[in-house]
Amino acid sequence: MAYVDIVTALAVLQFIWFGFQVGGARERHGVKAPAVTGHEIFERHFRVQQNTLEQLAALLPGLYLFSRHFNPLWAAALGVVYLVGRQLYAAAYVRDPAKRGPGFGLTFLPIAILVVGGLIGAVLALFAR
Amino acid sequence: MAYVDIVTALAVLQFIWFGFQVGGARERHGVKAPAVTGHEIFERHFRVQQNTLEQLAALLPGLYLFSRHFNPLWAAALGVVYLVGRQLYAAAYVRDPAKRGPGFGLTFLPIAILVVGGLIGAVLALFAR
Amino acid sequence: MAYVDIVTALAVLQFIWFGFQVGGARERHGVKAPAVTGHEIFERHFRVQQNTLEQLAALLPGLYLFSRHFNPLWAAALGVVYLVGRQLYAAAYVRDPAKRGPGFGLTFLPIAILVVGGLIGAVLALFAR
Repeated sequence: MAYVDIVTALAVLQFIWFGFQVGGARERHGVKAPAVTGHEIFERHFRVQQNTLEQLAALLPGLYLFSRHFNPLWAAALGVVYLVGRQLYAAAYVRDPAKRGPGFGLTFLPIAILVVGGLIGAVLALFAR
Repeated sequence: MAYVDIVTALAVLQFIWFGFQVGGARERHGVKAPAVTGHEIFERHFRVQQNTLEQLAALLPGLYLFSRHFNPLWAAALGVVYLVGRQLYAAAYVRDPAKRGPGFGLTFLPIAILVVGGLIGAVLALFAR
Repeated sequence: MAYVDIVTALAVLQFIWFGFQVGGARERHGVKAPAVTGHEIFERHFRVQQNTLEQLAALLPGLYLFSRHFNPLWAAALGVVYLVGRQLYAAAYVRDPAKRGPGFGLTFLPIAILVVGGLIGAVLALFAR
């Protein structure tokens, strides 16, 4: 399970990193709290962070369920795909939001496999008793 | 615990489903990223998804704590109430945001029981040692 | 682990409490759903809740990882620092968003220790096998 724990920590740190980017853009472009709109580039960084929060809320349970009912090593490997995909997504989104598709797909796919796989594994565990 | 894991996976998949609805509404109503405002119906779908993210952040720890310190089967049953309540909430919110109350109550109540119950269970576990 | 579970439940309840504050401010200042802007004080309460959601998404995995790979009691103690820091952050933010720094630092620091500590612990666990 240590591999899964490492990926979990890295995914959280990546999310924190995106939060720093938002804070930096807030300073740089003069967007005063509590506003979260007002400058296009700030808004892109903010949406990257918010979308990553949404994905994290699906990734972490997915990592847990998949590694519990199938295989921790495969779960960790899918988590690494997610980490790479998120970096591509963030870089593309800040450059041009219309280009965010591929990076999004690369983070959504491993999440879908983890959660659906975890669901199937949990259902099988029910019948295996 | 397999029942709790199934409910966990279903709650995450429901949240992902609400995310798809947001994406669809974004296309349909021409709300270009990074904007998250500009069309009433899009905003309703977006708020449903965002509120579900908030609830998920309370539900999942609640499911874990309650099933750990009380009873996994009761935790899963409360989770099913949440799942049904969220569907009612989403449908009502998109039709008319002012009507979102009952569905919200039906998701908030099981969450409150899970988290407060889990807290009580954890405190009791402390004294039982 | 019961201490960590108690802190987990309290952090979730604190987040739910901030959600109630948002609901109250929505009523009081006449911000109609699905809008999340339109009144400065409402927006402050909303940002407190949203920022707490972001922090919770890092705190809860951090508590788990740190208590698993190092020490549950220290994890719980860091969680208590977070809980106090969040109360200070919320109170300061609603009064004057420009004053939110110290409270933010007091919640960010324990999270950083928990997640980075958990990562180090998980890496060490890998080599200890």
